[in-house]
Formats: sequence, C-alpha cells, structure tokens
Amino acid sequence: MTERFEIMEKALTKMLEEKKYLPLREMLSAMNPMDIAGLFEGLEEQRIPLVFRLLPKELAAESFVEMDPDAQELLIRSFSDNELKEIVDELYVDDAADLVEEMPANVVKRILKQADPEMRKSINQILRYPENSAGSLMTTEYVALRPEMTVEEAILRIRRQGVDKETIYTCYVTQGRKLIGLTTVKDLLLADDDEMRVKDIMLTNFISVTTHTDQEEVVQMFNRYSFLAMPVVDGESRLVGIVTFDDVMDVMVEEATEDMEIMGGMLPSERTYMKSSVFELFKNRIPWLMLLMVSATFTGMIITTFEGALAAQVALTAFIPMLMGTGGNSGAQSSVTVIRALSLGELKFSDLTRVIWKELRTAILCSVALSVVCFAKIWLVDRMLMGNTDITLMINAVVCLALAVTVICAKIVGGILPMIAKVLGLDPAVMASPFISTIVDALSLLVYFLFANMLL
Amino acid sequence: MTERFEIMEKALTKMLEEKKYLPLREMLSAMNPMDIAGLFEGLEEQRIPLVFRLLPKELAAESFVEMDPDAQELLIRSFSDNELKEIVDELYVDDAADLVEEMPANVVKRILKQADPEMRKSINQILRYPENSAGSLMTTEYVALRPEMTVEEAILRIRRQGVDKETIYTCYVTQGRKLIGLTTVKDLLLADDDEMRVKDIMLTNFISVTTHTDQEEVVQMFNRYSFLAMPVVDGESRLVGIVTFDDVMDVMVEEATEDMEIMGGMLPSERTYMKSSVFELFKNRIPWLMLLMVSATFTGMIITTFEGALAAQVALTAFIPMLMGTGGNSGAQSSVTVIRALSLGELKFSDLTRVIWKELRTAILCSVALSVVCFAKIWLVDRMLMGNTDITLMINAVVCLALAVTVICAKIVGGILPMIAKVLGLDPAVMASPFISTIVDALSLLVYFLFANMLL
Repeated sequence: MTERFEIMEKALTKMLEEKKYLPLREMLSAMNPMDIAGLFEGLEEQRIPLVFRLLPKELAAESFVEMDPDAQELLIRSFSDNELKEIVDELYVDDAADLVEEMPANVVKRILKQADPEMRKSINQILRYPENSAGSLMTTEYVALRPEMTVEEAILRIRRQGVDKETIYTCYVTQGRKLIGLTTVKDLLLADDDEMRVKDIMLTNFISVTTHTDQEEVVQMFNRYSFLAMPVVDGESRLVGIVTFDDVMDVMVEEATEDMEIMGGMLPSERTYMKSSVFELFKNRIPWLMLLMVSATFTGMIITTFEGALAAQVALTAFIPMLMGTGGNSGAQSSVTVIRALSLGELKFSDLTRVIWKELRTAILCSVALSVVCFAKIWLVDRMLMGNTDITLMINAVVCLALAVTVICAKIVGGILPMIAKVLGLDPAVMASPFISTIVDALSLLVYFLFANMLL
Repeated sequence: MTERFEIMEKALTKMLEEKKYLPLREMLSAMNPMDIAGLFEGLEEQRIPLVFRLLPKELAAESFVEMDPDAQELLIRSFSDNELKEIVDELYVDDAADLVEEMPANVVKRILKQADPEMRKSINQILRYPENSAGSLMTTEYVALRPEMTVEEAILRIRRQGVDKETIYTCYVTQGRKLIGLTTVKDLLLADDDEMRVKDIMLTNFISVTTHTDQEEVVQMFNRYSFLAMPVVDGESRLVGIVTFDDVMDVMVEEATEDMEIMGGMLPSERTYMKSSVFELFKNRIPWLMLLMVSATFTGMIITTFEGALAAQVALTAFIPMLMGTGGNSGAQSSVTVIRALSLGELKFSDLTRVIWKELRTAILCSVALSVVCFAKIWLVDRMLMGNTDITLMINAVVCLALAVTVICAKIVGGILPMIAKVLGLDPAVMASPFISTIVDALSLLVYFLFANMLL
C-alpha cells in the first residue's frame, strides 16, 4: 500500500515540476479520494490550490472532506465564493457539520453563507447535539420510502434520488415522519414480485438509536449486529438521520486510541503522533506525570516513617523495587481487563461482586505462585549463591508474605476502581496503571513495614 | 439495549416454563440472529436443542453462526445427519471455515461429511491460509460479472444469484478468473442506460489485497478507505474471495483488545473476561508477573550494592518510589503512543530518528517542569513544613537531577523499544509499561546512586 502511494507521490512531483497539468489531472481523476487527500499532505502550501483546481467537481469534494483541517482552511481562504459554493453543495451533511466544527469563526460564516438554506438548517441541527452522541455522528441524506409503494416504485425512487444519498443500501420506511420499518436494496431486488408493497417486505423489528445515545453505545451496537447503517430517531420515534458504518469505524479507532492513551497516563491527543507538535505532546503528558510524581512523594513519606526499621535491617531496602513493581503490574493487569470489558459493554456495574470474586481467586493463585518462587529465589540465589547472610529466614518470610498480600490487594483494587469510576460517571480508563500503581505502591510499602515490624 | 434483551430473556423463560412453543417460535422468528444467540447463552444445556429446533431454517443458521463454540458443539452432537446438513448448507463459507477451526476433530469430520463437495473444497482452501491473513478472513460467495454484460443483464444476475451471496453491494468483474474491475449496486441502479456495458461503468483502479496480506494491514486499509468489502487476489491477480467490513470490524476489536492486554502485561485471552475461568486468567497473567518479579529482584541488587550510600544518607531512601514511579510513567507514555501509532500504520521503522528527536524534546520539557516542581516541593514541604533537616540542598539537587535524567532516558527508551521490536518481528505491544518500567526502574536507581556518590 505504501509503495503504491510513494509511486503516485513521485509522479505528482515530477508532473508539477514539468508543468504537465493535463496528465496530472488524468492521474488524479483515477485515484481514490483518500489517496488524493494524502498527496495533498505532502504538497507545499502554495501549490495546494493549484492542484486542487485540477480535480473534477465530485472528486474534489470527496477529497476535500478527507483532508487535514489546515489544508481545508487554506483552500477555503483561496476559494472564490462560487468555488466554495460548489464544494459545499457537494458535501454530505455530516461531513459539512464536521467541517464547520473544525474551522475558525470567519471561515464558518463564509461556509454557511454559501450553503443552501436546507443544508444550513441540517448543519445547525446536527451541531446542536451533544458531542459524542449519535446525533453528532449522523447524516440526513437517506432514502425514505412510503409503506404503500410497490417494489418497482421503490427501486425507481432509489434510482432517481440515490445519487445524493450517503447510502442507498438500507432504505427507511416512514409514515408521517415516524420510522415504521426498514428494507434493504437486496430485499427489494430479490423480491419475487414487483407488485408487492414495501410494507409487506420491510423489517419492522428494527434496531435504532436516539439522537442522544452515547457514541460508545452506538459502536457497541454496530459491533454486535454488523449493521451497514442505523437509523436515529427522536423522542417521538420520528426519523431524523442515519449513522453509517464508516463513521462508526472511525469512532471505534478513536475510542480505542483514547482509551490506550488514558491508560498510559496521558490526556487524549487531538492529532496523530507524528502530526502533534512537541508542545502538544508535553501538554498531554505533563498533567498526570506531575500529579503522580507529587503523590509518589507521599509514598516516600511512608519510608521516612519507617526509617528506623530500614536502618535496623538494611536488607529490607533491596526488595522494595520488586514489591512495588509486582504490585503495580498485578493491579495493571486487572484494571486493563476490566476497563476493556466495560468499554466493550461486556461488564456492567451490577457485576461488581462477580468481578471481586473472580479477581480474588485469580489473585490467590498468582500470589501463591509468586511467593513460592520468590522465597526460593531469595533463599537459593541471594543467600546461598550471593552469600548475603543478612537475609534471614524471617526476612525472607516477611518479603514473601508482603508480596502475597500486595498482589491480592492490587488485583482487587485494580478490578473495582474502574467500575466505581464508571458508576460515578468518570472515564474508567483513568483508573489504569499509573493511578493504580501509585495507590498500590503506597499499599505495598505499608504492608511490608507492618509485617516487618510485627515479625522482626 | 440491555433492557430490550432482558425483556426478551424473561419472555423466553416464561414461555418455556408454560410450554408455549408456538408463541415462542413466533417471538424468535422476529428477532435478530445476534440476540437469539445471546438468549442461548443463558439457556440450560438440555433446553438448547429444543429451542433451536423451533427456529426457521435460515434464521437457525444465522443464529448458529453467532453462538459460543460450546453451544455450537452441543447442538451439532444433538443433530441428526440431516439436521446438520441443513445447517451446513445454509452457512457462508467463511463462517463454515471458522466453525471447523473451533470444533474438535470428530465433530469436524461430521461437518465436512455433510458439506457439499464445493463447500468442502472452499473450506479447505480457506483453512490453508496463514492465521491472521486476508485469506483466512475471506469468503468465496461474491457476485461475479462479465465485462461485456449490459447493466440490465448484470442486475438480472444479482437478482438470480444474490440470495446466497455474503454481499451483493459490490460486484466483481472478472475475465477468465482475473479480477479486472468492480462495480457497486448503486452504480448499476443509477446507470442512465440499461444497455451500457459493465466494462464502461466499472472501476478499474480498485484496491485489493492478496491472500497472504496480514490482517492488521487489511484493517488499516478498511479504516482508511471505508470499504464495504475488499477483493482478495492470488499471485496471478485471480479473484479468490472477498473480505467484508463486518469481519474486519471484529478483527479491529480483537486486535485493540489484544494490544491492550499485552500492554497491560498479560498474554492475550481467548475468551471475554466474564467467560474466562479463573484458571485461564491465571495462565494469562502469571508469565509476565513472574518474569518481571524476578527481574525486579535484580533491580534490588543495585540497592544492595549501594547500601553504604543509603546507610550514610537515609533521607535518600524516601525518594526511591517517586523516582521509579515517575520514570515508569514517563516510559509508559512514550511507549503507548508509539505502539498505537505503529499498529494504526502511522509510523514506520524509518521514522526512528524522528521519533527519538520528538521524544527527546518532549522529555526535556517534561523533565524541566518536573524537576522544578520537585525541588520546590522537597524544599518547601519536606524540609520547611515537615522540618526534616536531613534534607540538605545537595540531596535535593541529587534527587531532582536524577529525576530529570531518568525522565529523559525513560521517554527515549519507551519510544524506541517498540520500534526495535517491530523491526525484529516481535509484537511492539510487548515493549509496554511492565517491561519498560522494569528497565527504567533499574536505570533510575543507577542514575540516582551515581549522582549521590558523585555529589555527596
């Protein structure tokens, strides 16, 4: 894939240098809009409007939609009002709404001015829905059929209206404005009798979402049912728009990336890694780094409190990294599993007791295995092999006991904190490794010193 | 969504208890196959065959495909040969291949025996492709058109053959067996003239994958181009099958989950969290926990080596958790970012120097910010507020210097290790928090004690 693209990039550069604009137009006309947008990313700014004007109208609009907001803004500023109107007229409403969201205020004014009244109304409607809701993802360009239409009439309508619709493959049957059923182009084409009515072949037990359904739930439903598109209805079952699978795929990728970033202790990024500036990366990373650093200093205070114990048995210090590390890793494992299960809709808060019970039993198995190996390792390697006679049987026991208790606590904490976050309305992904490690670090040290004090 | 499902579950249980099989059959016939499969998950084993036989044939096959392998196996064992043949005949080839992969050998024998020769051949062909390749994802049920066909003839073929095809929305134009173009149902329906030839409206500059293309690349292409389906060709451009968006969506979810699990220090799980047994969870978690615990004990040896320094300046011990924690978090941030960018195809190994330069500059910004705040915190809180006079200016400087150097090293290590893993053919996600934390822990302690020895 990358090879293909590099060949096209080289051809583009060559044709531009030799001013061979007609062959260039021919090459672009045969390309996929996504690839065209990719080519524009590598172009120097002053050349962008020139090359863009080579594109045939429909392809120009399709490529425009896939470009970086910076390139889009540059192009709009270079457009005459007529050129802008041509592009805006070709846009699907959901893409137009996305564009308006990204552009600065004066550019937005121009766009809305050039849009026809109906599109302007649809854009404003979509923008009014909460961010990350089905309403903000949807488009209003779908095929609507009436239930009394015959199959032949329905196919005729698709042929007449279809060119401007985001998808024709699922058609929506409305009465008044209420959504009463849906049918696919496959059903219509495969119907035995052209005189059958749409209401006879439509699916009435369809699945829909409302304008305010969270996009995470929309993603879960697309995942589960593998839809091409889903209808979006308002509070009175009136059809207001549709969400298509391609937009949902984009949301899926975004959400997974966001979850991974939050679990890695960062604020979610606006742009891809290579496109983010150093300052943007810094702004995303420093908040949690700073917060966790400061809270870790309080963990240090636990050590200061038990300074005496450490001075008496210096051997204890050497095991601190291992205890804290293993505790952190244990907590991370449970939290990642639970966070992912929550976001895929596999877990609900009512499963809390089952999660605790599951984590407890897993933790017991893990802690037994780890303690046994740890005991053996300390005895055989540290004491016998390395000859460290500071390490008594008691110290070994303290370390392994602390390890066992730490692992069990860490796994339970790691399992339940994301669920508690979810029920408090927070993003469960925040309760991941960095946050939990800090809690577990403090916990493991407390346990360690308590056992040390008790038994030594 | 969950509410709807719970209502259906209650209705199912009630009707079963009251032996109201006809109303039950009616309710099931109106349901989505995915929801039916979900209902079966909650059924007691002995009832599964009974309820399954209530389903109409096509719906039975569609629901069968969505069920748990355990339920599928149970049903197959309860089927007569005729019942099995009916189900197998209704399956799409890619689903049949998936089924054969999941079932034990004696069940597979029965399935293949009941499959017609052509399906048997297709299944074997699909199974021969490497796991996680496009070949293993594809199905062979697509609509093939000849280039000289008229639009009218093409639509007629779709109507005749379409019922058994996985998708009819994209049709593949072949000459001999070579794929020379593709056209959509939308193009065919919207064509002005029914007498136009397919070769006049087909897209020749289409994008395809080969049977051995890795599924991660297939996912990246679907993401980029938002296809409904992609054709799979062999080494001689002959069309062998298609991959549809719903299978790709499933792969996308699987791969993201797998990445998160590996980044959390676990082996990827076969089943969802709630369906995994405690022993399965233990087996996935213990390998890395054990390995990291043992390697962390070597980190402890660094402390033992510098025991003298710690005994001389006990105040140093209190800052160990903060240093190790901040180092680990810094490394985790870079590694998560790079791992995700690699898996989305945004980064290639040739970007290595750009990544190092980006991470270095981000790290310098972060380390300056953190060191300044750390210095202030230690001086104002630990020394002034808490009155800990052990903390001299020198000790403060050592801690903050070590912090700064640690953060910089951690971010660079975290940024480059996943890329090195990728170029060595390993899964980059392995170079995530647990692995990197262990390396960074050792690094931070070494730096700490080196500075301590130098300046104190």
